[in-house]
Amino acid sequence: MTASPQIRPTGALVIGLESVQGRADEVRSADPRTGEAFGPAYRAASAEQIDRACELAAQAFPVYRSTSPEQRAGFLDRIAELLDERRDELVDCAHAESALPRPRLIGEVGRTSGQLRLFAAELRSGTWQGVRIDPARSGSAARPDIRQRRIALGPVVVFGASNFPLAFSTAGGDTASALAAGCPVVVKAHPAHLCTAELAARAIADAARDTGMPEGTFSQLVGSGNEIGTQLVSDPRIRAVGFTGSRRGGTAIAAVAAARPVPIPVYAEMSSINPVLLLPAALAARGADLGTAFAGSLTLGAGQFCTNPGLVLAVDGPGLDEFTAAASEAVAANAGAVMLTGDIAEHYAAGGAALAARDGVDDLAHGARPDSAAAGAARLLTVAGSRFLADPALQAEVFGATSLLVRCTDATELTAAVNALEGQLTATVHAEEADHPLAAALLPLLEERAGRILFDGWPTGVEVGHAMVHGGPYPATTDSRTTSVGTLAIERFLRPVAYQDVPAALLPAEVCDDNPLGVWRRLDGEPGRKALSAESAG
Amino acid sequence: MTASPQIRPTGALVIGLESVQGRADEVRSADPRTGEAFGPAYRAASAEQIDRACELAAQAFPVYRSTSPEQRAGFLDRIAELLDERRDELVDCAHAESALPRPRLIGEVGRTSGQLRLFAAELRSGTWQGVRIDPARSGSAARPDIRQRRIALGPVVVFGASNFPLAFSTAGGDTASALAAGCPVVVKAHPAHLCTAELAARAIADAARDTGMPEGTFSQLVGSGNEIGTQLVSDPRIRAVGFTGSRRGGTAIAAVAAARPVPIPVYAEMSSINPVLLLPAALAARGADLGTAFAGSLTLGAGQFCTNPGLVLAVDGPGLDEFTAAASEAVAANAGAVMLTGDIAEHYAAGGAALAARDGVDDLAHGARPDSAAAGAARLLTVAGSRFLADPALQAEVFGATSLLVRCTDATELTAAVNALEGQLTATVHAEEADHPLAAALLPLLEERAGRILFDGWPTGVEVGHAMVHGGPYPATTDSRTTSVGTLAIERFLRPVAYQDVPAALLPAEVCDDNPLGVWRRLDGEPGRKALSAESAG
Repeated sequence: MTASPQIRPTGALVIGLESVQGRADEVRSADPRTGEAFGPAYRAASAEQIDRACELAAQAFPVYRSTSPEQRAGFLDRIAELLDERRDELVDCAHAESALPRPRLIGEVGRTSGQLRLFAAELRSGTWQGVRIDPARSGSAARPDIRQRRIALGPVVVFGASNFPLAFSTAGGDTASALAAGCPVVVKAHPAHLCTAELAARAIADAARDTGMPEGTFSQLVGSGNEIGTQLVSDPRIRAVGFTGSRRGGTAIAAVAAARPVPIPVYAEMSSINPVLLLPAALAARGADLGTAFAGSLTLGAGQFCTNPGLVLAVDGPGLDEFTAAASEAVAANAGAVMLTGDIAEHYAAGGAALAARDGVDDLAHGARPDSAAAGAARLLTVAGSRFLADPALQAEVFGATSLLVRCTDATELTAAVNALEGQLTATVHAEEADHPLAAALLPLLEERAGRILFDGWPTGVEVGHAMVHGGPYPATTDSRTTSVGTLAIERFLRPVAYQDVPAALLPAEVCDDNPLGVWRRLDGEPGRKALSAESAG
Repeated sequence: MTASPQIRPTGALVIGLESVQGRADEVRSADPRTGEAFGPAYRAASAEQIDRACELAAQAFPVYRSTSPEQRAGFLDRIAELLDERRDELVDCAHAESALPRPRLIGEVGRTSGQLRLFAAELRSGTWQGVRIDPARSGSAARPDIRQRRIALGPVVVFGASNFPLAFSTAGGDTASALAAGCPVVVKAHPAHLCTAELAARAIADAARDTGMPEGTFSQLVGSGNEIGTQLVSDPRIRAVGFTGSRRGGTAIAAVAAARPVPIPVYAEMSSINPVLLLPAALAARGADLGTAFAGSLTLGAGQFCTNPGLVLAVDGPGLDEFTAAASEAVAANAGAVMLTGDIAEHYAAGGAALAARDGVDDLAHGARPDSAAAGAARLLTVAGSRFLADPALQAEVFGATSLLVRCTDATELTAAVNALEGQLTATVHAEEADHPLAAALLPLLEERAGRILFDGWPTGVEVGHAMVHGGPYPATTDSRTTSVGTLAIERFLRPVAYQDVPAALLPAEVCDDNPLGVWRRLDGEPGRKALSAESAG
């Protein structure tokens, strides 16, 4: 891992795999610790450059989507390899631009390359094509031969997230799943980490060149205001959008997409307060331990996770005081942290103040605040269950390490509070076996409100695998039918096509009789990898 | 199949499985042959009745979605059984209200009950749950146990279609797939066939009672203006919409859904002109036969199919004159038909006239027009490829038996015409082996523009099976990621939920270690029906 000259940030956008300078206003990254500019000056993409990135993506689409799964897997593997090779440079930039600790960022590079490799493996698994074959029948129940597979939707715009400069940004899950599906990607880099974004984009461009992918397969643009996002989402050549960010941002993008002459799907992962339910026996058995562990989850990474536990719903009784004392103690002892940007720190402080100012909300504990304009201090608030039920504003997300402990008088009030919840990415339950009857009653309510339900843990880890759901009902996302983490995410960028009586010579390989790609197929409804025999074709 | 007193139309809505009278304005069905009222008087649902149907659906949802797949399969099978038992009464009503021929309607009852039975079989197949299990790991690659399944979205509103009073209406594909998924359904009956809709709704209500389904599982409302649709789609308890109808109607409903505080998916199947491509060798080999067969597909059911071939793209050369002559002859010999409603006939005539009035469009043939206000005459128009490329208005759908033959000078112009096409439900290619190189070049373009591609047939049959796609890019539908016909349609009404470290005693059956329901599951990514062994859980 020796640094080579080409892997320092240069202020470049990437358009059609080439590093180019933007032609509009200057945009700079800053070190949030000091507020001072970091890295080279960037210039935003001009309207013409945005148009060119979309045009190249549209031109690349028919070629790129027709590459074999193995070719795209090789491309994703190569991106992963380059990210790992350039890990130190990526971490240097991300550490300066995000103030996130180096060990966390080293882990995030591994998560990002691991995610790309997982999608490469998924491409090779032959499961994602969704192949279905209904062979022709003759006689009284005659029917034509119909075969179905999924194809790529078209060019995708991805908006990088502030809080994961690698794993949810330029080369993150949205990009990995869209590229895996066969969709060219145009990334709008997050302005908080332009240097990290540039290095990641150049790794993708280098990998695309190394593996012979067409020019328009990938572009990354820079811009500061809303115009660039609006132009990208409005562009007729763009067919889907991936976004991770605020409720306001995601809702605005969804509105732009819905107003297009030809609407497109928007996968925006937005806002979640990730309720943690503390059931009576769990509280009684381990109230203090839960309090300490909760505070650890709350303050991890300055609370800047989509799955940060911003709400605790507890049944009053034995152990709640111990939970409260231990959580308050840990929050008060927390050193605080520099947040991702000065703006985020400002919103964080204002959001916490607004929550604290609501009727019936009391402060339980404040942590320390480092000496920086972008610093955030952990904060724990509390309110009675009856007030929570009466005031929907108490469900506002405060992005950062602030949480609200809701003291419910009994299981009935807890259930009512769960019923009042908006959509969530996660819901966590702490329960002992004695709590299982109550947990069983709550589980269906949580299923209807969250994408992931976890027991006896904390929501702030999002495992990348086949079974993960990082999604959920609005406002957690704009589309609860899918996930932005895990292999299911590839389905966001695919659509089914049926082939009726298409001559064998013209059929795509995955639906051919002899199944040359060895994909999983539903043959007359029954899944398997079998070739289509003369008998089943009868 | 003897008629029993309860299966004559009575003018009833169905709210929460009960037959009730509407409380708003009178609405009548008419016999389109005469324009005279048919059947009893209906009254539209009042705002309170609409609200009550939504409330009952919301109350039923947690109970209904928790029924076992076997229970819901039994419910669907019972609906199918009752529809078959009441076939003659359904056909009597539908024949009077739609003017569609009895044999076609008898077939449509069978299609409708067959579709319900197919979804029942799908529920029993254990494939639709989309189960994925990533077992816990310890050690350096430690990870939690995560299990994923799909659950129902919530109450669904279905808008009945005019052109299939049974198969795409009250008990049609949208209702069948939503009920299969575990979603209660509120149908807005199509005003053109209120009596047929009532009988179908009562069959569903009777089946729900026979099989012990909760009260709010199904309702059917009647209304004439846009208000009822707007109220239903805006209702916060409604979580998805199925629609089959016009581009204007579908677009309006999608706009209402997008403007909700909490947006919901809309599956609107709307507008398609279903291009038929005639390649040179096919034309040369069988131009006249193609012309006759094309006219048969065009005029079937008065052309009132979503997949009616409204556009023919042909390469000029040997056989095109024979095609044109044979098609014109058959169209001219066509007796015409009474269309579904007077309004539809009026729109049909106006749409054909508007198309004929465009620059460069010539009339090739007119069919006869029966003596009825709602009658439609078949019509064949033609235009040069260069004009087609210059005038997007030539792609306007004319719902009925009018088609436009585009004469392309060569394969290049044909390809340009395909590139200019909007989204379609189907695209048909007629090709001989000599045409395969051209067909292979066109196929990717067609994949990007249509949900189903068929060779050497006609688009007007839509087989109900596992592999069918009845969908496609906008404006064919509002959501190209799915289908409204075939078993894949169930996925429209499901969303994934992940369970992390949830105690075994609380897990849903389909994700339990021992796989008691025998469903298909991806275990660490690999599909199969295996139980989870201690080894794989290590």
